[in-house]
Amino acid sequence: MRAIDIIAKKRDKGELSREEINFFIQGFARGDILDYQAASWAMAVLLNGMTAQETADLTLAIVATGESIDLSQVAPIAVDKHSTGGVGDKTTLFVEPLVSACGLPVGKISGRGLGFTGGTLDKMESIPGFDIYLTTEEYLSQLKEVGLVLAGQTADLAPADGKLYALRDVTATVDSIPLIASSIMSKKIAGGAHGIVLDVKSGLGAFMETLDEARTLARLMVDIARLAGRKAVALLSDMNQPLGHAVGNALELKEAIATLQGGGPSDFKGHCLEVAAHMLTLGGIAENIEAAAPKLNEALTSGLAWERFRELVIAQGGDVTYVDNPDLLPKASLIENILAPRSGYLKGVHARIIGETAMLLGAGRARKGDPIDHAVGFEIYHKVGDHVESGESLFTIHANDPAKLAEARQRLLDAHTWSDEPVAPLPLFYEIVR
Amino acid sequence: MRAIDIIAKKRDKGELSREEINFFIQGFARGDILDYQAASWAMAVLLNGMTAQETADLTLAIVATGESIDLSQVAPIAVDKHSTGGVGDKTTLFVEPLVSACGLPVGKISGRGLGFTGGTLDKMESIPGFDIYLTTEEYLSQLKEVGLVLAGQTADLAPADGKLYALRDVTATVDSIPLIASSIMSKKIAGGAHGIVLDVKSGLGAFMETLDEARTLARLMVDIARLAGRKAVALLSDMNQPLGHAVGNALELKEAIATLQGGGPSDFKGHCLEVAAHMLTLGGIAENIEAAAPKLNEALTSGLAWERFRELVIAQGGDVTYVDNPDLLPKASLIENILAPRSGYLKGVHARIIGETAMLLGAGRARKGDPIDHAVGFEIYHKVGDHVESGESLFTIHANDPAKLAEARQRLLDAHTWSDEPVAPLPLFYEIVR
Repeated sequence: MRAIDIIAKKRDKGELSREEINFFIQGFARGDILDYQAASWAMAVLLNGMTAQETADLTLAIVATGESIDLSQVAPIAVDKHSTGGVGDKTTLFVEPLVSACGLPVGKISGRGLGFTGGTLDKMESIPGFDIYLTTEEYLSQLKEVGLVLAGQTADLAPADGKLYALRDVTATVDSIPLIASSIMSKKIAGGAHGIVLDVKSGLGAFMETLDEARTLARLMVDIARLAGRKAVALLSDMNQPLGHAVGNALELKEAIATLQGGGPSDFKGHCLEVAAHMLTLGGIAENIEAAAPKLNEALTSGLAWERFRELVIAQGGDVTYVDNPDLLPKASLIENILAPRSGYLKGVHARIIGETAMLLGAGRARKGDPIDHAVGFEIYHKVGDHVESGESLFTIHANDPAKLAEARQRLLDAHTWSDEPVAPLPLFYEIVR
Repeated sequence: MRAIDIIAKKRDKGELSREEINFFIQGFARGDILDYQAASWAMAVLLNGMTAQETADLTLAIVATGESIDLSQVAPIAVDKHSTGGVGDKTTLFVEPLVSACGLPVGKISGRGLGFTGGTLDKMESIPGFDIYLTTEEYLSQLKEVGLVLAGQTADLAPADGKLYALRDVTATVDSIPLIASSIMSKKIAGGAHGIVLDVKSGLGAFMETLDEARTLARLMVDIARLAGRKAVALLSDMNQPLGHAVGNALELKEAIATLQGGGPSDFKGHCLEVAAHMLTLGGIAENIEAAAPKLNEALTSGLAWERFRELVIAQGGDVTYVDNPDLLPKASLIENILAPRSGYLKGVHARIIGETAMLLGAGRARKGDPIDHAVGFEIYHKVGDHVESGESLFTIHANDPAKLAEARQRLLDAHTWSDEPVAPLPLFYEIVR
């Protein structure tokens, strides 16, 4: 078997066999197949596509380049969730303690933010001492003892994924649905979850701008899970406007804490309860999502979910006084509340502009490894369809630089568009892909 | 400007500007743009294509990475020919002395064989002492003094072409018509010819198997020449069966010598006279191809063309006694004449099988730099449409290994297919692209 023949087959729109995909990915991981061959292949995949079977084979080939965590050692069934990324998406911070509190172990390998979307690890690192670098042994023992763990990916899991992603990033081959799907699913499968709820976002503030693209990605990921012997369900959710109010690391953590304590914005809470219900169902804790609702409600109102979050922070070395007193969390030096410049119905609250403006303030990073400012960000108070009176609070900016604050103010005013006529609210979810 | 944006633009079927192409090729030649980026770009070009303007810009960008020869210093107008490669294609060896003998200086930068097609330089190197490594100064002074020069490409001419070709060769991006066209034309343009006759072959023994592909390549190369301020004409010629009788380096040289001395197979001679007539017309020596015919006939029958070939050999250090006595040229140890196993009309004489079988004997190379055997090859006596009697000579094998001889015998018998009904002969040319 030769790498060049495999590239040529995909170039000519052929369907690669499992053996060919294994040969290519193993060779690439070992360094026998060179970067320029993988780059040419990736462009051929991007332009000519892959079938579900090829994508599943690719995913498992990537998984096989590293170790896999066997969660069965510590939990008979463990579930995970994955979001394709959005603006204000702090779902994990609320959902995972909630599901864990219902008796379902949750082991999550998470990522940092890149571009206009935030990352769960960055949000948790607003807590002094919180350590995301766990060994596999630490990961497993915490999952067993606490029932909840939230760590960064180790180099030992699916190493070919990291290598391939770094190459795609510099060769304009990121935007390929089969390559995105296999990248996501290789990490989930290597991470050992038996059931996976995929939160696939579409809209202005998501990587998939159209529902069609999101549906294709969701379908493919669910198929990969099935072909890999895992259970998965994908929820197609809206990302035209931010989720919840807070955008920015410490601000989002505070909002998650408030929600765990029974408050929080209703759109965020509603979104999370749906995701959590699917996790309980996949995990066999509830027969269906209707049956999951009272369990989730009980875990929340009893304070168990909040307690589970505190245990997570303590287990990973975080200073729990910071979550008990969120006012201690990093705070920006400049906080400005902006009032609505007019009365009317909100037609749009442009998630992409808001995400990019948060990056401008320092909340996100343009390149891997860039430092970020945990304190900065926004609170965005209204949703599409809301009627807002002139002079009402529209948003609050948390910044550490006056010039950037001024620029952010203008951009966020532009991100809000208005109508004199009533506007229909946006749904939380569009559809479910099983 | 960033390399990744240029790759993404081609990925998304955009048309690259001259500035973008220059930036990319200059960066690649300097090493600022890395192999994996060029590989991804090349695959995007292969799959999404390029316009004639883009291809011309690419050609000139490649030319600009090295020096260009200015032939105007030594000849007011110089012409060249280029063949896209075939089996038994020794056209250059006959045509260039003939055209030079008509008073038109011919400066040719030629290549070695790769794969199943032969290379002019390999054929000339059958002559002991013949040196293809000329400096630009030597090249120019020989063109001025002899009116004929035949050399290998120096690294200084279009160096980005060599670098890009080496990369395409290992990334399954060779078979792109715009990349093939720009590779060929960059060398021709850097070589300084004012007029270029392109012999674009199609059929079983050519890189372009269909006439449509050959036509597309021809159209593109002629357009590039025009956009680069050169004159060009492309002849679409047949390569389903070998050209002439001889296949193999010394054997082809002998056939070219015989043709220069007034003999030679009629198909080969007819093909060459047509190519030569177009060269004289482009060079302004003849008003049209009809007017070129008597001049060519005179140069041939007077012995001037043969004399010019001898001068070429002498000027480049070759031992002229070997061309004066072709029996001195490398000879194989095993020579076997194979008779027709049946009577009938020849339906096919499969050029590709014959070319690959010549490689098997050692006449060609699978990889750049492999050694070759100048002595081995075939003489194939009949053409498609010929009526052959059982027991007539069908072909002769020249080999240096009995096992390979036996394998070649069977393959060549298989390459000849038969019909009881008359079969139309194949044309020499299909059409002309101006």
